[in-house]
Amino acid sequence: MPATWAISGVDMHVDVENSRVRASIERELREAVRGGRLPPGLRLPSSRQLAADLGLARNTVANAYGQLVAEGWLVARQGSGTRVAAAVADRDHRTRAARTPVTAAPGYDLRAGSPDVSAFPTARWVAALRRALATTPAQALGYGDPRGRVELRDALAGYLARARGVHADPERIVICSGFAQGFDLLCVVLRNRGATTLAVENHSWPAYRSALRTHRLRLATVPVDEDGAVVASLTDEDAILLTPAHQFPLGSSLGPVRRTAAVAWAADTGGLVIEDDYDGEFRYDRRPLGALQSLAPDSVAYVGTASKTLAPGLRLGWLVLPRSLLDPVLAAKTRGDYTGVLDQLTLAQFIAYGGYDRHIRARRLTYRRRRDNLLRTLARDAPGTQVTGIAAGLHALVTLPTGLTEDEAVTRAAQHGLAVGGLRPYHAGGQPHPPALVIGYATPPEHAFTGAVARLAAIFRTQ
Amino acid sequence: MPATWAISGVDMHVDVENSRVRASIERELREAVRGGRLPPGLRLPSSRQLAADLGLARNTVANAYGQLVAEGWLVARQGSGTRVAAAVADRDHRTRAARTPVTAAPGYDLRAGSPDVSAFPTARWVAALRRALATTPAQALGYGDPRGRVELRDALAGYLARARGVHADPERIVICSGFAQGFDLLCVVLRNRGATTLAVENHSWPAYRSALRTHRLRLATVPVDEDGAVVASLTDEDAILLTPAHQFPLGSSLGPVRRTAAVAWAADTGGLVIEDDYDGEFRYDRRPLGALQSLAPDSVAYVGTASKTLAPGLRLGWLVLPRSLLDPVLAAKTRGDYTGVLDQLTLAQFIAYGGYDRHIRARRLTYRRRRDNLLRTLARDAPGTQVTGIAAGLHALVTLPTGLTEDEAVTRAAQHGLAVGGLRPYHAGGQPHPPALVIGYATPPEHAFTGAVARLAAIFRTQ
Repeated sequence: MPATWAISGVDMHVDVENSRVRASIERELREAVRGGRLPPGLRLPSSRQLAADLGLARNTVANAYGQLVAEGWLVARQGSGTRVAAAVADRDHRTRAARTPVTAAPGYDLRAGSPDVSAFPTARWVAALRRALATTPAQALGYGDPRGRVELRDALAGYLARARGVHADPERIVICSGFAQGFDLLCVVLRNRGATTLAVENHSWPAYRSALRTHRLRLATVPVDEDGAVVASLTDEDAILLTPAHQFPLGSSLGPVRRTAAVAWAADTGGLVIEDDYDGEFRYDRRPLGALQSLAPDSVAYVGTASKTLAPGLRLGWLVLPRSLLDPVLAAKTRGDYTGVLDQLTLAQFIAYGGYDRHIRARRLTYRRRRDNLLRTLARDAPGTQVTGIAAGLHALVTLPTGLTEDEAVTRAAQHGLAVGGLRPYHAGGQPHPPALVIGYATPPEHAFTGAVARLAAIFRTQ
Repeated sequence: MPATWAISGVDMHVDVENSRVRASIERELREAVRGGRLPPGLRLPSSRQLAADLGLARNTVANAYGQLVAEGWLVARQGSGTRVAAAVADRDHRTRAARTPVTAAPGYDLRAGSPDVSAFPTARWVAALRRALATTPAQALGYGDPRGRVELRDALAGYLARARGVHADPERIVICSGFAQGFDLLCVVLRNRGATTLAVENHSWPAYRSALRTHRLRLATVPVDEDGAVVASLTDEDAILLTPAHQFPLGSSLGPVRRTAAVAWAADTGGLVIEDDYDGEFRYDRRPLGALQSLAPDSVAYVGTASKTLAPGLRLGWLVLPRSLLDPVLAAKTRGDYTGVLDQLTLAQFIAYGGYDRHIRARRLTYRRRRDNLLRTLARDAPGTQVTGIAAGLHALVTLPTGLTEDEAVTRAAQHGLAVGGLRPYHAGGQPHPPALVIGYATPPEHAFTGAVARLAAIFRTQ
């Protein structure tokens, strides 16, 4: 039985015979918002009222509203009900499952894990694609090479050597779908070699742990301090996953002594170091720190990505592999693992013509300005907080004033229309860091940054 | 120790200390050809001579030459040594491992599995990307939805219903990296449900079998005749993989009675039908035959792809899933399995603005003309051959005259500078079809088609 209802004079239809009623309601509302039939700011009927109108369980409607809030189409604010989201940039389908282990997405977003995607260099990217298609033989569009396009591997070899000090040979680079696929492939190879245990930093990205579960590898952890991972605590693990440039999420960088110790551990034990260089391009206060990989290219598997420099949606990453891992990684790749060639060819052009370096330089200036703004605002308006991990990257750690829990801080932020994430979801074992928020200051679009930081500061004023 | 040698006055350098000497030689030669330092048609020193000059094993050089011949940079012709390939379009890195289980790639190529990638609609694709980026909220470039972009799922739902009769709901579509990833995901889900056996057509794509081995599923086969797969021979298999529109590689299409039988089998046993609709868009002699999926959307997992309509390098495919498989397939997706959003958004625009349909119509006319040309030429110049499977698709089956083996035919073709593939690698069990070639008449670029067909005919004249 098709049901029809109206919101502010807009007719909504949903086929209630369909067993996916909730999905149908979501779709209808999403399309009405996307198409402009439901204008920004419009207040929706309460879930109780709409459920009564439709003869449905209240939960069905409430869950549909919740999903659309999570996707950013609707905004739920205490005391003012559910409304159509204001900013077009936020009115998109956004089931982000990334480095952002929190749930709702109200109007402003300072969760870590994403650059400002509204700064994607659209026009120059399109121009680079046009150039790439004009200069590449058509056969590039055929079935691919498991290593990825040679043009991109050539361009990356030059870029990584220049910008990150990586000892990079195009023959040892494998293009992959972001860090996630690169790490998956390494896990498969480790398992095939008989590895059982992989160490991670004791505060780290939760997706590391779920990948280990998927690949049935045991988790070990090493502590992290202001010099990065305490590598000396490694024993007979088969591999360690490190974020040397800018520890995620605590923000320290791996000191020179620790770097030497990490590669010595690998040399002594035959262990593998996996270097997640997710934001190594963004450094503010000190001279660029090269990749750990350069110290021992045959013990370190380097993983880089365009997710932070350009956009996560590209799903473009790259492995620079120890010689001994190249063939096993390629063997682990199935045809389903190949990455589309157009983005590869475009990025190769973008790098070759200097556009990539230029884009990163401009982004670095912007993010540094945002970081300074964040530091200033919190120093002035958020007594009792302590901000660390600020020398590099796209996020900072804001340790909470005594007495304020992460849950309280996240809830208060949500009440101010701001999505933030606590540190706890990143804790993987050992001694936990005191309660803190992981603030991704690169996430919001430029126009929303100041408002987002003001809302963050407001959490602490109302304490 | 770096070694230097010269070919026709061009200096070549390779670091022989490097343990990957062969790869270094390959790279140096590839770059010299790509950069034009070694011009088309140039004859290279024999592998024996070059190996002596470099102080290397002859095999090292011969293997490097072989790899570059396989990639299309060089051409080896009996009696005239190894030369730099002539056509720029063919001088590209092409380690195609696709539906083409043969090895060398001389000047002309009639192997099955690829459309004419030189016909990729470059300008219109770039325009569609520009439009997509201008009209899509920036958040589309963030971490994605495991189902793929909603814009593409919406566009595909309309297209698949219109063009292929698929019962398509955007909520039941999952974007994947070509057929390969779609099938991988289905295999994972089948295994998780306790499935043990999957049936394939007894002549079929070898990659099906390797996927089954990867996922530790037992292989069963059903015979194929002029009405497609003999579905009546199914018993208690857990699933069957069919190519109903145009059997690959024999070329028949699944008849109406068989279609009904296939879905009845699924209904009776709870088995799953997987429909590989790899080239369903290309039909010449009869009215479009809709997808099998439309008969039983909850028993058939439909897999479509842009590999034959646009280009395999896009790695774009789509699943239309039975309701019960949607959540398990999404659960089987890891973040490493996501597809880049730019191609998704572009294809959505391309479909929405009619460009996709227009492109397919134009391609259909061209491929039909090529097919007619192939039929005419073989009828005139290749007595004793029989051509079947011609009503649709991008390939035809050329049954060989009595006495000519597939190996002989493939070798003769190579001597004429033509790469073709025999039928035998596709045989998966049961009664084999008589010796035949699987001719992909869509593969060559337009300018090379007539020459390729002439070379094919020449195989039979020299008999």
